[in-house]
Amino acid sequence: MVDIERLSTAEPNFWERLRAKTAWDNSAEAGVEHAVRDILHAVKQRGDAALLEFSQRFDQLEAQTVAEFEISAERLEAALAELPSDQRVALEQAAGRIRAYAERQKQESWQFQETDGTLLGQRVTPLDRVGVYVPGGKAAYPSSVLMNVIPAKVAGVPEVIMVVPTPAGEVNALVLAAARIAGADRVFTLGGAHAVGALAYGTATIPAVDKIVGPGNAFVAAAKRMVFGVVGIDMVAGPSEILVICDGETDPDWIAMDLFSQAEHDEQASAILIATSERYLDQVQASMERLLPTLEREAIIRQSLAGSSAFVLARDLSEAAVVANVIAPEHLELSVAEPEALLAEIRHAGAVFLGRHTPEALGDYCAGPNHVLPTSATARFASPLGVYDFQKRTSVINCSASGSARLGKTASILARGEGLTAHARSAELRVEAEK
Amino acid sequence: MVDIERLSTAEPNFWERLRAKTAWDNSAEAGVEHAVRDILHAVKQRGDAALLEFSQRFDQLEAQTVAEFEISAERLEAALAELPSDQRVALEQAAGRIRAYAERQKQESWQFQETDGTLLGQRVTPLDRVGVYVPGGKAAYPSSVLMNVIPAKVAGVPEVIMVVPTPAGEVNALVLAAARIAGADRVFTLGGAHAVGALAYGTATIPAVDKIVGPGNAFVAAAKRMVFGVVGIDMVAGPSEILVICDGETDPDWIAMDLFSQAEHDEQASAILIATSERYLDQVQASMERLLPTLEREAIIRQSLAGSSAFVLARDLSEAAVVANVIAPEHLELSVAEPEALLAEIRHAGAVFLGRHTPEALGDYCAGPNHVLPTSATARFASPLGVYDFQKRTSVINCSASGSARLGKTASILARGEGLTAHARSAELRVEAEK
Repeated sequence: MVDIERLSTAEPNFWERLRAKTAWDNSAEAGVEHAVRDILHAVKQRGDAALLEFSQRFDQLEAQTVAEFEISAERLEAALAELPSDQRVALEQAAGRIRAYAERQKQESWQFQETDGTLLGQRVTPLDRVGVYVPGGKAAYPSSVLMNVIPAKVAGVPEVIMVVPTPAGEVNALVLAAARIAGADRVFTLGGAHAVGALAYGTATIPAVDKIVGPGNAFVAAAKRMVFGVVGIDMVAGPSEILVICDGETDPDWIAMDLFSQAEHDEQASAILIATSERYLDQVQASMERLLPTLEREAIIRQSLAGSSAFVLARDLSEAAVVANVIAPEHLELSVAEPEALLAEIRHAGAVFLGRHTPEALGDYCAGPNHVLPTSATARFASPLGVYDFQKRTSVINCSASGSARLGKTASILARGEGLTAHARSAELRVEAEK
Repeated sequence: MVDIERLSTAEPNFWERLRAKTAWDNSAEAGVEHAVRDILHAVKQRGDAALLEFSQRFDQLEAQTVAEFEISAERLEAALAELPSDQRVALEQAAGRIRAYAERQKQESWQFQETDGTLLGQRVTPLDRVGVYVPGGKAAYPSSVLMNVIPAKVAGVPEVIMVVPTPAGEVNALVLAAARIAGADRVFTLGGAHAVGALAYGTATIPAVDKIVGPGNAFVAAAKRMVFGVVGIDMVAGPSEILVICDGETDPDWIAMDLFSQAEHDEQASAILIATSERYLDQVQASMERLLPTLEREAIIRQSLAGSSAFVLARDLSEAAVVANVIAPEHLELSVAEPEALLAEIRHAGAVFLGRHTPEALGDYCAGPNHVLPTSATARFASPLGVYDFQKRTSVINCSASGSARLGKTASILARGEGLTAHARSAELRVEAEK
């Protein structure tokens, strides 16, 4: 029996029940925060020596120097060369598509000149150096390497430093091969809060970066929050989510498997299906009952379905869109006959998968758009990871003498209105020079 | 005697001394954090009732309902109508230029179709609702209203909610007029951490927003940090900074006044001049000695010059650019004969002011680019506030049946490589359907 709660928009307490399903507290536990603060302080103060200690304590790595943690370009190349050819080809195809999509996100500098010769512009440049955190152990995902490193390289970041923990020395060959294909410039077998500290503050061996991206456990997330300001960070991600809206005409096995593909991530994952008939929900439930016992990650899936997942019965597709906009899901499948029409009613989602032939899994690996997406309703204000996250903008102002005299009069009036008379006089000096 | 420290790049401990000048700790004090956590909790739990209490306690405002804090559109219009005409014209000119520059920042949605009919795109949409925090009391700046509200409206945000504290009921007419010109949709006389809480969580009277922007004191900054994740925030700004690089040919009075215009903001402000001759530094110092006693904010200026400010002697302009890239200043003036050539050597700055006729003050008010800029070396990875901060992106994927079958094979191999077999089977179901 697959345990998944059923809600209906017709119930009086629907929104309350939905909120209970989708609420997620992203504040770090006090215990985690305390431990992480100590680790960051140690790395900042003692650099490499602290990294050696923490790597021994947390990952059972014995080393005399942090330089031993670096994985050489030759070793990355060898990992790629030794892959089974189907995996190598798949990684390269995925990388090619991710790169092609990212290329379209590049922002270019622009400027324009006004009639008096004054020039205004916006200069767009890549960050100097970026750190990519890649989780190790059982959650070591080569696809994450591609999704985090490629947009940085497309942006033109000269140096991408990747860190990946290797607990007890266990290295994932696919991860190393992905690092090679994506173009990571240096790779270190480091993980946890101390790796974040090393990237933020720099040590004798690990270069300080300007921004840190990539997912991690609660310690990594807390560390990223704490170093924010010293360096940029991408986001602090919550559990992964899928929302599927279906008109009842998609093969129920397909929808069941799409929901499973999200639910198998971890026990906190959320998979929600909105349909417009009870009968279709029953069909998907029947598919789930039949298919779930055949899946390797059955136990995890059962837990996430019983947890933050739900079946929702809505009156019609427009009402389903209203619910979707409140959830603002990370992934949204519109498994309906006219997905473009329904898309017009969607205001908030990280990524939208249109039509019955676009399961989320394609977006997770190789469709092209990034799989690092805003979770926990942050799609209301946040965006997928992209090239723009590795570029920065600088305003450029070059006033002609006459332009300065003209603008200076306006600036002077406003500055005096604010009581900032040095501002006013700085502008007025240029006005007087043109008299 | 104007007290400003002199450094020289030739000194052996130059970088250390420079770092001491420019270091800034942006972590909140524990006391502030504790107080703010309580205030946010109260607002989240008790809504309007908590707002009434805090407004009475912190701003001496007596009101029966939070609705009394709303400033009507008529009152905003009246504030604008009653302004002296030079101020009204100046505000409108500034607003027009800020709007024109912002229009060029708008990002548009795009999509492209592949030969098999698969469609990929990026949808760009405005946020639903944005909160703009405007400081009250002595630091109530109408220019900040323009700079924060206008890009949100240009982005297409339907509802911009502005909050501005009015301690003891003191309202700034220029601020209200600026709100009217900029197009703020609703204005409330609320400030402090409780105003941030109201915007983040919503109350019966104050609508919850999706992002909060705008500067504030230590309590406001701590509150913004804490609600980050529930809503988006712009950035937590440090003290304002200017770096001027001069070739020694600009009238020293101009440079002195440009430095003063930054130093007058507050005692923590930083004004640094880099020049290539000791003689020119002496000339600017002489100008400072003569001009400083004529300024209204002399006392503040003296403190900021003695604090985080400095004169730096560099060997040549290229070395000055190296120093600038380490400082990554909020404002950078290139007061030199060939500013475009020097700009090519600059990698990090919030805004660059080129040539002798472009004092920072023009950018603060009316040149067009935003005056909300990354401080404390965050220009290494952060950008000026802009229209893009009020837009979000959603990835769009619509696979044709044949495209899905093709991509599904790649996704299946990678998913199986990661041990995520439900992902693999979700993709494979579409591959099999096309056989």
